[in-house]
Amino acid sequence: MFRVESDALGSETVPSGAYYGIHAVRARDNFTVSGRPVNPRITRAIVMVKKAAAKVNGRQGNISEQVASGILSACDELLQGQMDQHFIVDAYQGGAGTSTNMNVNEVIANLAIEKLGGHKGDYRLVHPIDHVNLYQSTNDVYPTAMRIAMIPLLRSLSEEFASLQEALQEKEREYADVLRLGRTELMDALPIMAGQSFGAYAKAIARDRWRLYKAEERLREINLGGTAVGTGMNAPLAYIYAIAEELRELSGMGLCRSDFPMDGTQNMDVFVEVSGLLKAAAVNLLKISGDFRLLNSGPSGGIAEYILPPMQVGSSILPGKMNPVIAEMAGSVAMKVISNDTAVTLAAASGQLELNAFAPLIAESLLESLEILTEAVRLFHERCVRGLKVDTAHCLEHLERSGVMAAAAVTYLGYDAAAELAKSAAASDRPLKEILLEQGLMTKKQIDAILHPLQVTKPGIPGRSSDL
Amino acid sequence: MFRVESDALGSETVPSGAYYGIHAVRARDNFTVSGRPVNPRITRAIVMVKKAAAKVNGRQGNISEQVASGILSACDELLQGQMDQHFIVDAYQGGAGTSTNMNVNEVIANLAIEKLGGHKGDYRLVHPIDHVNLYQSTNDVYPTAMRIAMIPLLRSLSEEFASLQEALQEKEREYADVLRLGRTELMDALPIMAGQSFGAYAKAIARDRWRLYKAEERLREINLGGTAVGTGMNAPLAYIYAIAEELRELSGMGLCRSDFPMDGTQNMDVFVEVSGLLKAAAVNLLKISGDFRLLNSGPSGGIAEYILPPMQVGSSILPGKMNPVIAEMAGSVAMKVISNDTAVTLAAASGQLELNAFAPLIAESLLESLEILTEAVRLFHERCVRGLKVDTAHCLEHLERSGVMAAAAVTYLGYDAAAELAKSAAASDRPLKEILLEQGLMTKKQIDAILHPLQVTKPGIPGRSSDL
Amino acid sequence: MFRVESDALGSETVPSGAYYGIHAVRARDNFTVSGRPVNPRITRAIVMVKKAAAKVNGRQGNISEQVASGILSACDELLQGQMDQHFIVDAYQGGAGTSTNMNVNEVIANLAIEKLGGHKGDYRLVHPIDHVNLYQSTNDVYPTAMRIAMIPLLRSLSEEFASLQEALQEKEREYADVLRLGRTELMDALPIMAGQSFGAYAKAIARDRWRLYKAEERLREINLGGTAVGTGMNAPLAYIYAIAEELRELSGMGLCRSDFPMDGTQNMDVFVEVSGLLKAAAVNLLKISGDFRLLNSGPSGGIAEYILPPMQVGSSILPGKMNPVIAEMAGSVAMKVISNDTAVTLAAASGQLELNAFAPLIAESLLESLEILTEAVRLFHERCVRGLKVDTAHCLEHLERSGVMAAAAVTYLGYDAAAELAKSAAASDRPLKEILLEQGLMTKKQIDAILHPLQVTKPGIPGRSSDL
Amino acid sequence: MFRVESDALGSETVPSGAYYGIHAVRARDNFTVSGRPVNPRITRAIVMVKKAAAKVNGRQGNISEQVASGILSACDELLQGQMDQHFIVDAYQGGAGTSTNMNVNEVIANLAIEKLGGHKGDYRLVHPIDHVNLYQSTNDVYPTAMRIAMIPLLRSLSEEFASLQEALQEKEREYADVLRLGRTELMDALPIMAGQSFGAYAKAIARDRWRLYKAEERLREINLGGTAVGTGMNAPLAYIYAIAEELRELSGMGLCRSDFPMDGTQNMDVFVEVSGLLKAAAVNLLKISGDFRLLNSGPSGGIAEYILPPMQVGSSILPGKMNPVIAEMAGSVAMKVISNDTAVTLAAASGQLELNAFAPLIAESLLESLEILTEAVRLFHERCVRGLKVDTAHCLEHLERSGVMAAAAVTYLGYDAAAELAKSAAASDRPLKEILLEQGLMTKKQIDAILHPLQVTKPGIPGRSSDL
Repeated sequence: MFRVESDALGSETVPSGAYYGIHAVRARDNFTVSGRPVNPRITRAIVMVKKAAAKVNGRQGNISEQVASGILSACDELLQGQMDQHFIVDAYQGGAGTSTNMNVNEVIANLAIEKLGGHKGDYRLVHPIDHVNLYQSTNDVYPTAMRIAMIPLLRSLSEEFASLQEALQEKEREYADVLRLGRTELMDALPIMAGQSFGAYAKAIARDRWRLYKAEERLREINLGGTAVGTGMNAPLAYIYAIAEELRELSGMGLCRSDFPMDGTQNMDVFVEVSGLLKAAAVNLLKISGDFRLLNSGPSGGIAEYILPPMQVGSSILPGKMNPVIAEMAGSVAMKVISNDTAVTLAAASGQLELNAFAPLIAESLLESLEILTEAVRLFHERCVRGLKVDTAHCLEHLERSGVMAAAAVTYLGYDAAAELAKSAAASDRPLKEILLEQGLMTKKQIDAILHPLQVTKPGIPGRSSDL
Repeated sequence: MFRVESDALGSETVPSGAYYGIHAVRARDNFTVSGRPVNPRITRAIVMVKKAAAKVNGRQGNISEQVASGILSACDELLQGQMDQHFIVDAYQGGAGTSTNMNVNEVIANLAIEKLGGHKGDYRLVHPIDHVNLYQSTNDVYPTAMRIAMIPLLRSLSEEFASLQEALQEKEREYADVLRLGRTELMDALPIMAGQSFGAYAKAIARDRWRLYKAEERLREINLGGTAVGTGMNAPLAYIYAIAEELRELSGMGLCRSDFPMDGTQNMDVFVEVSGLLKAAAVNLLKISGDFRLLNSGPSGGIAEYILPPMQVGSSILPGKMNPVIAEMAGSVAMKVISNDTAVTLAAASGQLELNAFAPLIAESLLESLEILTEAVRLFHERCVRGLKVDTAHCLEHLERSGVMAAAAVTYLGYDAAAELAKSAAASDRPLKEILLEQGLMTKKQIDAILHPLQVTKPGIPGRSSDL
Repeated sequence: MFRVESDALGSETVPSGAYYGIHAVRARDNFTVSGRPVNPRITRAIVMVKKAAAKVNGRQGNISEQVASGILSACDELLQGQMDQHFIVDAYQGGAGTSTNMNVNEVIANLAIEKLGGHKGDYRLVHPIDHVNLYQSTNDVYPTAMRIAMIPLLRSLSEEFASLQEALQEKEREYADVLRLGRTELMDALPIMAGQSFGAYAKAIARDRWRLYKAEERLREINLGGTAVGTGMNAPLAYIYAIAEELRELSGMGLCRSDFPMDGTQNMDVFVEVSGLLKAAAVNLLKISGDFRLLNSGPSGGIAEYILPPMQVGSSILPGKMNPVIAEMAGSVAMKVISNDTAVTLAAASGQLELNAFAPLIAESLLESLEILTEAVRLFHERCVRGLKVDTAHCLEHLERSGVMAAAAVTYLGYDAAAELAKSAAASDRPLKEILLEQGLMTKKQIDAILHPLQVTKPGIPGRSSDL
Repeated sequence: MFRVESDALGSETVPSGAYYGIHAVRARDNFTVSGRPVNPRITRAIVMVKKAAAKVNGRQGNISEQVASGILSACDELLQGQMDQHFIVDAYQGGAGTSTNMNVNEVIANLAIEKLGGHKGDYRLVHPIDHVNLYQSTNDVYPTAMRIAMIPLLRSLSEEFASLQEALQEKEREYADVLRLGRTELMDALPIMAGQSFGAYAKAIARDRWRLYKAEERLREINLGGTAVGTGMNAPLAYIYAIAEELRELSGMGLCRSDFPMDGTQNMDVFVEVSGLLKAAAVNLLKISGDFRLLNSGPSGGIAEYILPPMQVGSSILPGKMNPVIAEMAGSVAMKVISNDTAVTLAAASGQLELNAFAPLIAESLLESLEILTEAVRLFHERCVRGLKVDTAHCLEHLERSGVMAAAAVTYLGYDAAAELAKSAAASDRPLKEILLEQGLMTKKQIDAILHPLQVTKPGIPGRSSDL
């Protein structure tokens, strides 16, 4: 049922079916914090690093062909994600990722041993450190793996932003000529086209895409080959030059070797930068989803100019109550992303000398932010933006009732007369046009030219702009 | 393989083995965010509320005895935590907890139906809303469940703080007469007893205990009976008066009915308060664990006055390297608690009018903080504080080398002479006492009285204090 | 024009009119960060500590009567706040407050020297360190002064909370019988009394008062007498026992001597606690002011159920536009308080060993939070809450249009019929009562009893509650 | 003594010497929050916008030549910063910047009136709104002014980063061949060159420069011409096209007109992005300054490998105590920058519909961050980095004592023998080389080749690298 493994601190029993070994067992027991294991994206990224190392080490004769093939075969199996249950270290842990790296080393070694016909624990065949971890250190493996785990997520998120932008632009076109009341500080302001406001959102989201795109560049620089403190001591030069290239090919992510790996070993500002950009995206998501919730409020006691697609029944007491749950979910995820940024910042600021011991907290927090933001953005455009309807009639009603269109007449009637007009319209609840005609202030032709929807929502003095 | 359920939005297929129903299915699909389900403490707390409601409703004849017994039996089974996989809604969700509440209602109903001999989905027997949710609303159930989920964690955390305080006080006693160099701004300052510094930590932790104790009081006030907006409309008065009492007994947590349930339905400041107190505790944990890491630094190139118990092998390259992983884990968790506080604050500040739609984010974040902080504190005292050793000789060496003991002579020799003395000691690397004797500045008796360890670490002028 | 002063690092010129000395000059030049001086509440609190020390030292013969009287007289003058321009150190500084403490020591010494007939800089008469700072250290003076500076602000803030609570309760009474639509997730929910929602706010604010009251207790414990590292070395026992008592009397704040001053010298969790409580208050302020802005939105295109008192003209383009500027200011200050909490937390977590070098950042941030929150709360109740009007007619209109009152009939008509009724009312825009009568579902008497405002906003089944 | 001005809300007295008018008076009284006025960089940036508008409006005949010349002359005077005391609105305010914009309009108008020979308050000559604010709105002026205020600060900060990078690279060169112990998780790790670690810092700071450079691009896009909600309604097309170009020339900042000004009116994510980048820089500053404080700790009881330049006397009790105050100040400012980021994030996320009412909080917080970070970085390189000395002997002593150099022999002796060697060295406190020779494990020539400083701090197997 159990095998016994030992290290410098003594020996421990390991379940005989376990692919992990003594280091993982100690780490599991030391960090029984959340019950949640390390994000599998990290362990798989480490496996990818190990695969690259085994290839290079095999090719360069640093390990035997047999050992190399065992390791490679083990890595391939693990990369399919079917054995994640053997990565047993808690997401919250001490030690810069050493326990995660060792857990991976052990699982690969034992799996390779079996593939080579041996029994788990017989590390003479394949050794977690001497073979799997050869010429590596947690301190160059882990920061490299963080980048490998994040880059694909950055790309997925970017794609979801593209889809969101597209969905918003679709609404921009769909409602390009639907007037609605613009509001500043929540108070009635000037007319706009409903479509325009979707365009304003789309512009913000376009910036989010662009930022992520630029951030990826900086993530591509890896410190692999730097070993323990970034100097690269004890790894052969041939290996150092080959490993980054190998990983670049394996990953297909355009990775490149840092010209100063000591930097990447100790400095985590790149992750703060990325997290800060996600925070900017989260702020946009909060703004847009908050606007949707406001404009969807009602149906009778709110603004009720937008109708969000109903996704689930909202109340057992009130029939027909539909809550803006997708917009709320998006806001909720945005708040979590903002809060994860605090963890990333604190951990990155806590680096000391040649290493940052809190890299695992950065990894977990930032990966979660990337994952949940990607999903939230996807759900938001699929289940909220695309199905959103603007209640054209209600928009117009609000606008007309408000009298703000009187502002379009300021150039012609003067400020005071326009102000009087606005007050009359608001007080009498009658359309502005009617009052203008009745009071003989403008002819119908003038009214049509000046209060024309396209005139009051574009740059220029209404009636004088060239758009008609 | 599937059954079909329907609601106001249409119908959906539900796996025939599933105890959840259509609402949970819709919610699952709407919120595929993290893949992590709602914290089971919340679902179980909701089950407890349902049990209390079924008891009262059965007793008062609001539901039949049969239905009540079915629900109670279902609740009892669920409270054992064996069916958590039927709670399928994602931790990150829109909608104030409605989806979680409905998921629980559905699971209870279907389980009760089976217990009464029916088939899942035959809600004529037991209905998720008409029976299980009778006289309740998500809006009074969920904030109540948040409190029920948190109070036991507050108590566990408090107990772990008590153990940590005890462990620190044990060290305070153990090293009560071991002199070490006090440091301010990391620079050599005055002598202290190693024990005293453990005492200073213990005092801070004692405050943490006290704060949690006071916070629990405020968590005990529940808004159950307030129904949708806190007015209590549509719940019979007899039910309202009985339900809080029933839940109080069931939970054994000293819960009491709010005299103004509308408050608890919309205001979440209590959770911000609790989270803020956890943040204060996190700050203490960061301070203490950071000090441990500093004083443990070395063994050759650091301060090396403390020796933290070795818990796992720290390096594959450097034999014997032991890293302060438990202290790092504690710091890491503290950072996460601080970061969760951001989510709690943002969500609580985002309440609008009669409800806070972001209560689930508050619940998830605060429960995680409570859980991981409890575990981290436990691991910290068990695996770090209790086994910590002070390197008495090294402490003394640092102290003597520093010359700071010269400060004890200021009253006798004057400031300038004492300064000279300190400089000589530091420059020559010779014990102060030797120099004092050699230069004839003090007699051996005076030296023994004035530079006595207990004299230089207690209030008063050394040599004049009454402690000897 | 200049005098020359010197210290261990050499000499510096000091303007001859300056009461500060060389240490302040060096600190000023080292910390030209913000151009904003240390919060005067801190310098005055330090002056108060110095006064207490001079009294004790004079009485106990540690300094001459003449020196004591010079210092006391200087302190009295400084406490009037007319010489704040001589405190020249920047708010952002290194060094645990040493520069601020030394600046105060110097100003007091030079002022005392003049009062005794000497010339500024002639420290033989009164010495900044040997006399003014006698038996003190920055490390016991500064944390003590932080508390002295904060306690009166806590009390002022508490009083403003009391006034806000009162103003809200006044509105609760004023609008006790004005029905308005309750909204959950911004969607139409059940009826409430407008007054009730002010009551819910008042309850939250009452908690804020209570929390501050409890927090003050913990601030009262001072570490004065602990000298540099909290051991109290080199201060005579007689002085140590007398100084806290003296300061207690001088301040009138119920201060008490810590039984373990080393704790207060290095642990800053108490300030994190207080800041966290302010954050809870800020969250309440954001919630309330946000609700006000929502309910005040309009006048034509928003909810427009509340009318905030107009305080300034809101637009040059739109006549009559009044923005909710006081509510926005309150929200803005709340955000700043939340952000200052981050600084307090970071600084408190950065304490190391026997001192926290970042205490000045804690002091500045927390004092600002206390100051601006006090003012914001005052302005909010004076200029926003007290003048707020509820638009009773508009409230009723929204409510009737919504059909949510149909929920009151569920017990009598069943859920389905009530749902139909609600839909009819919402669709036809006709009052519910009319439809009920028309369809013969209820008699007029029943309607009056069941849909009675007091019945639908109180606990119980409408029509069966005992309130009529 | 007073003049009376009036607006839609009534009339107010204004001190006759005041250049501000009724709007500023009301705003001053509404926002008596902090006593600190709006950051003068904002008011001056607004003045610059006004100047550009007056130029365009004068040229296009929208205002008379006389009025234009009066306004231009007033603007020029105000841009010299001598009249800042007339900008009286508090830094914390409601209302999206309207009060600040109006304060500026009023001061310019009254100053222009005087320059044209009139009396303050006689707005027939020059009107704050009709002339100074012509074709503008707070909502396009304020976000534009924010950018104008920030861009020069971004550049100054960038220059200071360049100087800091340079200073660090100077140290990199200066200590290029000084061995010191590398430390991971504060524990002895592998040897590095002291110079290398300065190089790692310099690399991080280089990223900071690059990020700011990219961020400036996005700040250059202005929404001026968008008027109230971004549509540009009521501003003549000729004005709209000319104003951005005019301001571009006036400012010399490469500003460009947004192609969608509605975006810049309501979306504040750009400021979150910039603040996030400052946060990344703050994290680097915390890391570097923290390392300095660690390595400077001592002199007897710490690591004491670095000697920071003494800038001020650190203690009245301990002669010669010098604290790392500049590094602490830098850390303190970094914490404040991180905390201001919270305010920026909260405020940016609180935008609603066509405007963000909390823009002034963003402006104040981000401008403060830029200002204090610039100063802190300058002081840090001038007063800390440049004067820093590495204690070469002490570095070597730590390194030799640690035995970590044994790792360089692993390839030759095998892991176990090297481990034994390390233990012997550490235990006996004797140089490794001595033991190697004594035990006949290596020849002196081998030792010199393998344990060569340049071999153990560069990539490759020591002794096989090509560097010698």
